[in-house]
Amino acid sequence: MADILHRVGIQTASIEKVYQALTTRDGLAGWWTTNTSGEGDQTGNIIAFRFGAGGFDMRVTELREPAYVRWEVSDGPEEWIGTSISFELRQEDDFIILLFKHMNWQEPVEFMHHCSTKWAVFLMSLKSLIETGKGSPDPDDVKIDNWN
Amino acid sequence: MADILHRVGIQTASIEKVYQALTTRDGLAGWWTTNTSGEGDQTGNIIAFRFGAGGFDMRVTELREPAYVRWEVSDGPEEWIGTSISFELRQEDDFIILLFKHMNWQEPVEFMHHCSTKWAVFLMSLKSLIETGKGSPDPDDVKIDNWN
Repeated sequence: MADILHRVGIQTASIEKVYQALTTRDGLAGWWTTNTSGEGDQTGNIIAFRFGAGGFDMRVTELREPAYVRWEVSDGPEEWIGTSISFELRQEDDFIILLFKHMNWQEPVEFMHHCSTKWAVFLMSLKSLIETGKGSPDPDDVKIDNWN
Repeated sequence: MADILHRVGIQTASIEKVYQALTTRDGLAGWWTTNTSGEGDQTGNIIAFRFGAGGFDMRVTELREPAYVRWEVSDGPEEWIGTSISFELRQEDDFIILLFKHMNWQEPVEFMHHCSTKWAVFLMSLKSLIETGKGSPDPDDVKIDNWN
């Protein structure tokens, strides 16, 4: 098993604002992909994220407002099936610190390397969304390689 | 043990140009930190990278020009001691694909989350250096959180 880990600090006093960006359709569409359906504010909900041809369905499995969000991948590329994603928030100095985990990859395949870098880029998009009002969600996301 | 993994694709036909950016002082200073001393083109060499107060010393342990570079951390923060870093290059489509690994962290501590995101940002700086002639090395690097 292998995990992708990231840490970003968002310059805002409002942890609630970051939590909203992780649990509402409009929030998620503002930093990950504009093609987002479903709300993430109730456990059991499914959120559908689409990127060009493919995408991911996430089941919301845990919420502790405003500090913790956890999803399980219910549909998507085979390497993602059985993996979970969590976002942990807390205040520190003038920042909301976000600890991100994409857990339980079966193998550290090349696609995992790609997803690790791509998550960093999307978390920087979330940071920018909160700090400046403008993120870079798909299809206007920062491209990192030939897989996009 | 835990590993940081990343994948970037650099739009250039010259794998040699990417290899130079990983093995020469000027190349490394162009994307990671301007305060770099030493050359990385011989195994056994030490390269010293400095960032503000702290930094890392790397021993070059393996070179296979132009496709592979491996370093061992010989001095730096305690969490980095005993870890290794590798860069693997190959041509694919119109890209040089770079697979990056920072291996053998004892524990997936919070500092590892930070370093994972920060490596992504620096690898995007390397991509930019090759593609546009301009990277964003420290001290003009992209800040990600309250640890910088």
